[in-house]
Amino acid sequence: MVRGITRREEDYSRWYQDIVLKAELADYAPVKGCMVIRPYGFAIWEKMQAALDKMFRETGHVNAYFPLLIPESFLQKEAEHVEGFSPECALVTHAGGAKLEEPYVIRPTSETIIWSMYRKWIQSYRDLPLLINQWCNIIRWELRTRLFLRTTEFLWQEGHTAHATAEEAEQEARTMLDVYRTFAEQTMALPVVSGLKTEREKFAGALRTYTIEAMMQDRKALQAGTSHNLGENFAKAFDVTFLDSDGERKYVWATSWGVSTRLIGALIMAHSDDSGLVLPPRLAPVEVVIVPIYRSDTERSQVLEKAAEIKAQLSAELSVELDDRDQFKPGFKFSEWELKGVPLRLELGPRDIEAAQVVLVRRDNGEKKAFPVSGVVGAVDETLTAVQDGLFERALKFQQENTVKIDDYEEFKEFMARDGGFALIHWAGSREDEDRLQEETKATIRCIPQDGEKEEGICLLSGNPSHLRVIAAKAY
Amino acid sequence: MVRGITRREEDYSRWYQDIVLKAELADYAPVKGCMVIRPYGFAIWEKMQAALDKMFRETGHVNAYFPLLIPESFLQKEAEHVEGFSPECALVTHAGGAKLEEPYVIRPTSETIIWSMYRKWIQSYRDLPLLINQWCNIIRWELRTRLFLRTTEFLWQEGHTAHATAEEAEQEARTMLDVYRTFAEQTMALPVVSGLKTEREKFAGALRTYTIEAMMQDRKALQAGTSHNLGENFAKAFDVTFLDSDGERKYVWATSWGVSTRLIGALIMAHSDDSGLVLPPRLAPVEVVIVPIYRSDTERSQVLEKAAEIKAQLSAELSVELDDRDQFKPGFKFSEWELKGVPLRLELGPRDIEAAQVVLVRRDNGEKKAFPVSGVVGAVDETLTAVQDGLFERALKFQQENTVKIDDYEEFKEFMARDGGFALIHWAGSREDEDRLQEETKATIRCIPQDGEKEEGICLLSGNPSHLRVIAAKAY
Repeated sequence: MVRGITRREEDYSRWYQDIVLKAELADYAPVKGCMVIRPYGFAIWEKMQAALDKMFRETGHVNAYFPLLIPESFLQKEAEHVEGFSPECALVTHAGGAKLEEPYVIRPTSETIIWSMYRKWIQSYRDLPLLINQWCNIIRWELRTRLFLRTTEFLWQEGHTAHATAEEAEQEARTMLDVYRTFAEQTMALPVVSGLKTEREKFAGALRTYTIEAMMQDRKALQAGTSHNLGENFAKAFDVTFLDSDGERKYVWATSWGVSTRLIGALIMAHSDDSGLVLPPRLAPVEVVIVPIYRSDTERSQVLEKAAEIKAQLSAELSVELDDRDQFKPGFKFSEWELKGVPLRLELGPRDIEAAQVVLVRRDNGEKKAFPVSGVVGAVDETLTAVQDGLFERALKFQQENTVKIDDYEEFKEFMARDGGFALIHWAGSREDEDRLQEETKATIRCIPQDGEKEEGICLLSGNPSHLRVIAAKAY
Repeated sequence: MVRGITRREEDYSRWYQDIVLKAELADYAPVKGCMVIRPYGFAIWEKMQAALDKMFRETGHVNAYFPLLIPESFLQKEAEHVEGFSPECALVTHAGGAKLEEPYVIRPTSETIIWSMYRKWIQSYRDLPLLINQWCNIIRWELRTRLFLRTTEFLWQEGHTAHATAEEAEQEARTMLDVYRTFAEQTMALPVVSGLKTEREKFAGALRTYTIEAMMQDRKALQAGTSHNLGENFAKAFDVTFLDSDGERKYVWATSWGVSTRLIGALIMAHSDDSGLVLPPRLAPVEVVIVPIYRSDTERSQVLEKAAEIKAQLSAELSVELDDRDQFKPGFKFSEWELKGVPLRLELGPRDIEAAQVVLVRRDNGEKKAFPVSGVVGAVDETLTAVQDGLFERALKFQQENTVKIDDYEEFKEFMARDGGFALIHWAGSREDEDRLQEETKATIRCIPQDGEKEEGICLLSGNPSHLRVIAAKAY
């Protein structure tokens, strides 16, 4: 154990929990299954929001805000939707000191309340497409919860779009999946596989659900974002039609798509190590920490002066901390900033000043290297890029090494019982076969890859002919 | 009526509602007392958030997120607090298909849940001050609601700080009031008076409440932001103590402060006119609209080319729209962008191009002026500043003209029954006197000005000696 963090090998779950609590990302709340997102964790979420929001705007979306409470009857208008969500709902039955005539549910997702408004706003093809996103809180009453990964309340964004044609809605659903994939890979340094969910795993009320799935260090899959083609289901449930340019009245086509604070859990589980959090530079609230090294007061003032100078130079583009606390030794500071996942440490002592150099230490692999102080801005910049890329490469290699083709069910069972990972299997089974797969192996079909090559084969379980491999894994 | 907007003179309430709905700022939701904040209204809120968040960071605060649900018993720990808030609470009694052992209230404000966490986080003077802010949604079950001004659910920020000394907490409460005043005046172009609330009007659970109050165009007051010195009340209720540097264990001192989406209501009521919304440039989602004027296809392509060029120049620093819709005449476009409150219209026709000029039209006062196209960036910049300043000056003049000293209760009653405004009155009455004042005149004491000059006098109602004038008004 390093400063109270359980090693991954010893207990992966405890390791995860230790990092969340000790890096002060979140804390348990005195509310069933809820967490408090502490300032350091929330700063990561704010960075995620900023990056995603920019991408949503670039793809033509605008933000709005819809009510937290939804009349219970609204949920019941879409049959699959109510079946999927009502067991997880929290119910408001009393307010203002009186019993309500009709209870409200706290939104578990906002399709129903939003489509009740779209009915008012959409009259003609000129009102389409309607491309709205919302950042908000959600409640789903989960039995087993885990900080960030599954909490009763969580924060997310939910996009809800309305289109004139089926093709446009399908295109939108795919475009947004692509936005998620780009965000995961380029900002989170998280490689993902993307594809379709099976009928069993799709969103309640959707025609088709697309997903991005990432591999955690324990080789389990984590669903990192979903995008749904909702077809005409919600338009029919809420009677939303438009007058098309051909003079005909038609139902509106819909999509919805979302990612949540769960991504912070994915970030931790994908990159962190036994010394604590490891953050990709693009999401790190502090990108560089400067740790001054000195033994005397003279050295101290000399080193701190130079350190402040360097900090000022770097701060134009980066978020930089200078740890000038006098009561702690450098070694203690190193550990603390490692625990916090700061991507780059800049060490500066009297000998470095003499040699006109700084020492940069990478959080991701511990690599230590001296650079001339005159080129510090460029050196830091390059090293941060190397950390960002290095994290992605390492995670991708791990994912690839733990993705295997399996054609025999006994072998599959063993694989899942042993280390697990992503199993590429032939699948053409029924919903009942999927139930059986999960019961017997704890694995589920995570996705039917979009860009998977055609390959003839035999379904692992049912023996039916199959034309494509799917990805099966145990999942969070 | 201009394009369906009721005139202020005719019906001020209807005028307000017409603007909110027709400028598509918000819409009524199918949930009692709730609204949907539409994209255009939400863009204003995002601009408010960005400006405030920057000021909060500059004063040392960080963001976090606490749960929506609060155990009902928490509210009861602070006697005044529960009395003030529990009649307005929405109650979650069932979740996940079962009745809850203890109901949760949906946060009407977060002091109690936050101080339950501060108890875990604060041990020593080294943990102080703790300066946390939260952006979130709130529910208070209001009987009479009005879009933005009073809605069952609203969005706000709530700062919650913890300090080692009473002096520091008092300083924080005043600092944040000052932040609010600066924001109102410099960003919203909204002059405010600031000061203390009376005991009757203060926040439930506070030692002292500071407020900023603005005057609307119907001369009513609107409370635009409050900052509370909570003393040791919440520390005592949740047993939050710290070990001070002198080795003694002491209770922690607290403040809280907040502003909400109500500010959008204030913005509308302060500046808008019978043609629609009027926005100060610093909060306008679109700062400049370019309307091309042409009669032939040749003119059209010539004008649009130049307009696109100007748009590109302006877009480096500003949010600019080029309204190149072919199906509408310029006059129609003018009205539409006036309704939307865009601060500046740039007109460009063939004659302007010949004369190498553009015409700028201010939304606030209709002033129309030609500028050489070569200096368009500077001209737009200066005119926007003039609009921002002009709105503030106009609102300040209105406030001053409608603020009068009154020393006679009959005169006061007449004043409030007639046009109303801010009445500067001598006050030294009891809580019961305040009740009577409101019953008989509908006015309340809005604030005891902070920087008010000492002046001896006689309380308007009780006849007690008074040393300072307070501000009384009818209020939203």
